[in-house]
Amino acid sequence: VSTLEQEIREQGDVLRHRLEHGDVRAAAKTIGDARHVVIAARGTSDNAARYAQYLWGRELRLLVGLAAPSLYGDERSAPDLGDAVVIGISQSGQSPDIVSVLAAARTQRRPTIALTNDARSPLAQQADIVVDLLAGPERAVAATKTYTATLVAIAQIAEAIRPTVAARRTLHRLPDEVDALVAAQLATRKRFDALDGVDLVTVVGRGFDYATAYETALKLREMTAIPAEAFSPADLAHGPIAAVGSRGAAWLISGSTPASNELITLWSDVRARTRTSVAVAADTAQFAPAIALPDIPAWAQPVLSIIPGQVASLRLAERGGVTVDAPNGLTKVTLTT
Amino acid sequence: VSTLEQEIREQGDVLRHRLEHGDVRAAAKTIGDARHVVIAARGTSDNAARYAQYLWGRELRLLVGLAAPSLYGDERSAPDLGDAVVIGISQSGQSPDIVSVLAAARTQRRPTIALTNDARSPLAQQADIVVDLLAGPERAVAATKTYTATLVAIAQIAEAIRPTVAARRTLHRLPDEVDALVAAQLATRKRFDALDGVDLVTVVGRGFDYATAYETALKLREMTAIPAEAFSPADLAHGPIAAVGSRGAAWLISGSTPASNELITLWSDVRARTRTSVAVAADTAQFAPAIALPDIPAWAQPVLSIIPGQVASLRLAERGGVTVDAPNGLTKVTLTT
Repeated sequence: VSTLEQEIREQGDVLRHRLEHGDVRAAAKTIGDARHVVIAARGTSDNAARYAQYLWGRELRLLVGLAAPSLYGDERSAPDLGDAVVIGISQSGQSPDIVSVLAAARTQRRPTIALTNDARSPLAQQADIVVDLLAGPERAVAATKTYTATLVAIAQIAEAIRPTVAARRTLHRLPDEVDALVAAQLATRKRFDALDGVDLVTVVGRGFDYATAYETALKLREMTAIPAEAFSPADLAHGPIAAVGSRGAAWLISGSTPASNELITLWSDVRARTRTSVAVAADTAQFAPAIALPDIPAWAQPVLSIIPGQVASLRLAERGGVTVDAPNGLTKVTLTT
Repeated sequence: VSTLEQEIREQGDVLRHRLEHGDVRAAAKTIGDARHVVIAARGTSDNAARYAQYLWGRELRLLVGLAAPSLYGDERSAPDLGDAVVIGISQSGQSPDIVSVLAAARTQRRPTIALTNDARSPLAQQADIVVDLLAGPERAVAATKTYTATLVAIAQIAEAIRPTVAARRTLHRLPDEVDALVAAQLATRKRFDALDGVDLVTVVGRGFDYATAYETALKLREMTAIPAEAFSPADLAHGPIAAVGSRGAAWLISGSTPASNELITLWSDVRARTRTSVAVAADTAQFAPAIALPDIPAWAQPVLSIIPGQVASLRLAERGGVTVDAPNGLTKVTLTT
């Protein structure tokens, strides 16, 4: 069994550990007092940042912007961060341009927070507050358990700022739900065979599901040779739908019940254009045959809805003869900017 | 000749008209006093917003965030916009979710600005200040002249906030440079034939060139059946480079001279993986054979560097038998959210 498969399997335990031991009080205090948050991240961590933008925006009415990291390479010409709290997200804590955003924030005397899996990393050293992801060492190049651990840390912060019994219960249900979904997806080795040979995967999701759409596309691209792109339904309908063709696949993320009529109509249009499709959906009646998401609030679904994308990437890479723990062209840490 | 080709040809005149008659003083006053700007846009306008994020961030040290429009559908649960100035960009001014962001901003008593080609549109009606793009009616579904007009309006605002003789001269050189580049690109009908039949176009650009990379990919996707994706060099190297294959094409945008060593190395790697490539570059020595950008500052190049992408999309669509003024699946205005 590959390290990647082991790390996918570990996710339930990682999240259980995070919920028991992951301290977010200091971060929640600082973010709860903020009027405005800027997050710097790249790749998988940038997809987690999209989740924070949406969750904190929706649940806390907090304005969350995503930094353009390359603006911060020179502290003297970096944007004036005003009254923002600045958060860097990096699993390794090594990405130089994410570190540079936190360094610029410190120079401007802004509060800084690092979400990282290495509490001694350069990113952590630039931060006033470190939220350690506590995911254990991640050895496969493709990030899986650190992604779901980051999502849970972001949700824990929201819950700590505005605690409710219902949100707390939902969070604590997640590890068991993750275990069940991971086991079900890994059990059927041929589940994603229909995707083999497609020339493009178009992933659709909106709102809370937007982050999952991006992360599903990124996992497929980095693990397989298949191009994959993510869109919100509105953006897809606005033009890129022209490139969705009969040799491609469609992939839907929909964590809400009931699904909106607009999404049902768009999905029907996209499915009709493509060779095969995968729906990861809570409203299974509308999107049958779907990989079913459980009956939990839409804000918590992203922790689950990425799992089919992780498993499909693993299985398609195995079929393609890729060294799944270190696929072609990939390194764990980005050193270029 | 198609309406799309006419509109591509008109761009020099449109920009000449914009520079002479486009009033940005009120917008520049409001933005110049701001500590923080939030921009809402979709599709092509969102690519113009990326340019504003970068130009105003770099030249004015202004913090510019891009709104997640779907958070603003319900004004009561919309994020607290704090002290932000809120800008909506929409060529038609009709996109309901962009209008909803400005409506939420008004409810929160934030200053609002519309950049639109229709000064009587719903978006304009929600704005305290309207910057009319003055591009004339755009009839082809694919936006071209409204995009470059939006970029110039954004650059005019920066110049009005911090006027310099050099910047003013650069702006006023643009219409002639646009005319020359448009004529050269349109003259050779077969220039982009090598792209026909590729299965993916990977477009690379960073900093000021990031917006052009995204807009080039969007134009190719909406006009042709070829999937196209844009990446910053750092993001591409971080994983998606695995999907760049021997049946694909690479497309470089590089408006700076000299080009960085990192970009030269990455481009050499990407080119080696692909069947054909196009470089739109100012540093032609490093990227030969390149479509040459003139010797102007990097911040102004995006007005020019999109033109080869516009013309390639037109020519490839013509070759593919697409109705270029209204390609498959495309509507001018997004009504879904």
